[in-house]
Amino acid sequence: MKIEDLIAQIHQKKSFLCVGLDTDLDKIPKHLLKEDDPIFAFNKAIIDATHAYCVAYKPNIAFYEAYGLQGWRSLERTMEYLNANHPEIFTIADAKRGDIGNTSTRYAKAFFETMDFDSITIAPYMGKDSVEPFLEFEDRHTILLALTSNQGAFDFQTKKVDGQELYKEVLSVSKMYKGSERLMYVVGATKATYLEDIRKIVPENFLLVPGVGAQGGSLQEVCKYGITKDVGLLVNSSRGILYASNELDFAEIAAKKAKEIQQEMEIELAKLK
Amino acid sequence: MKIEDLIAQIHQKKSFLCVGLDTDLDKIPKHLLKEDDPIFAFNKAIIDATHAYCVAYKPNIAFYEAYGLQGWRSLERTMEYLNANHPEIFTIADAKRGDIGNTSTRYAKAFFETMDFDSITIAPYMGKDSVEPFLEFEDRHTILLALTSNQGAFDFQTKKVDGQELYKEVLSVSKMYKGSERLMYVVGATKATYLEDIRKIVPENFLLVPGVGAQGGSLQEVCKYGITKDVGLLVNSSRGILYASNELDFAEIAAKKAKEIQQEMEIELAKLK
Repeated sequence: MKIEDLIAQIHQKKSFLCVGLDTDLDKIPKHLLKEDDPIFAFNKAIIDATHAYCVAYKPNIAFYEAYGLQGWRSLERTMEYLNANHPEIFTIADAKRGDIGNTSTRYAKAFFETMDFDSITIAPYMGKDSVEPFLEFEDRHTILLALTSNQGAFDFQTKKVDGQELYKEVLSVSKMYKGSERLMYVVGATKATYLEDIRKIVPENFLLVPGVGAQGGSLQEVCKYGITKDVGLLVNSSRGILYASNELDFAEIAAKKAKEIQQEMEIELAKLK
Repeated sequence: MKIEDLIAQIHQKKSFLCVGLDTDLDKIPKHLLKEDDPIFAFNKAIIDATHAYCVAYKPNIAFYEAYGLQGWRSLERTMEYLNANHPEIFTIADAKRGDIGNTSTRYAKAFFETMDFDSITIAPYMGKDSVEPFLEFEDRHTILLALTSNQGAFDFQTKKVDGQELYKEVLSVSKMYKGSERLMYVVGATKATYLEDIRKIVPENFLLVPGVGAQGGSLQEVCKYGITKDVGLLVNSSRGILYASNELDFAEIAAKKAKEIQQEMEIELAKLK
């Protein structure tokens, strides 16, 4: 997907919501467990109910991988369904991959070609030649971990290298990679004020912001410090939407929650004009 | 697997060779392509031919993931074959995963339980709560990326944080994690002299050393700086063994190459006595 098409979709839907598909057999409504493929049945119902309020879906790959072949089958079916019925929606493989060159190319092919994702999350630790193979794919996007929302972010990400925090070094260094116009960054919303500094380094790249909702970030804070003239934000919510109800009405309640966030986003987008 | 059993196997086989199963349909002998499952057929032949000379196999997960469901099926069959026929051999999922707590737990279950690997490689960028979920599994081992053998290692890993290089910080900080006795580390052999410094921080942990052979490291150098009284090394070779021939004799030639490395290792192990 071209970035312009993502931006157009944001303005059309008045939303920059990403729904995280962290689909967990222990948490989905019990009545779905008798389906042939409960994971896909749940995802399909969530997509049908929420697609008008969001611009992106982000399957968390670990949740599928944990179920072995059956999980991968459910993921493939989810992607086939999304790409057939909602090709305008941006898809993110939340995979946090990264390896040396020819191996990174394999991961890129797995997600960009075999499964036709628009983007993938990548860990930066192995540097340039682990990231650039992903950047070679036209109209595909690589979302590099910069500042994550977990406690462990303080172990290394916020420590200073060459006088600036490691996550800022990741931003600065990766800007020089070949194909860096296809980079986005993961920035945890639990540290929204950091966004001010981040925007000094990457004024235009899209930021994927997890941690609004269940993980406790504030949408207003994120927008205050992170929004750009072309929005430049995808804000994710997973559990707060998926598991708002685990009764028969789960999809309806998920839609209600997604719409609530969309309406908050509409207010923020109106401030751009 | 208990670490004592790995050490015992090393002394019994006089080898600390790990064979990397980077199985690539474009590189395996053409006659295997007519098999139902060419990837498994290749792996089985390699395992049958080399298991006497190595103590570990390391499937590179990207190579399987790139082939979608079929690739995962081949990986599962490979693991079933290994665990049924060679349960004494240490298995490494070269997956380079890592995510926030509950997601890391999913990855741990995928590889330690669903696929019954003895160990997995993990990226350290997200810190403590991304690594500790893997360390909770008894007799399973987590191999943290410290210093990788690719050019991109110089982007971040060798930069100084708090006065020491990031990869040393990763070693120092991760030693404090709960369950750190189950940690091993990836250290690229192209920088064997760094092993001297690394051993000052982690004197006993096993190190997984890629990059001997095709990537150009020297076994003697690695042993000079990295070996411990309990060996503490797994040295990997992938392409140099797998693709030494792509004719009918591929398995025989792979065995010959593996045996050559084993014999070099036997000399190094003899020096320990």
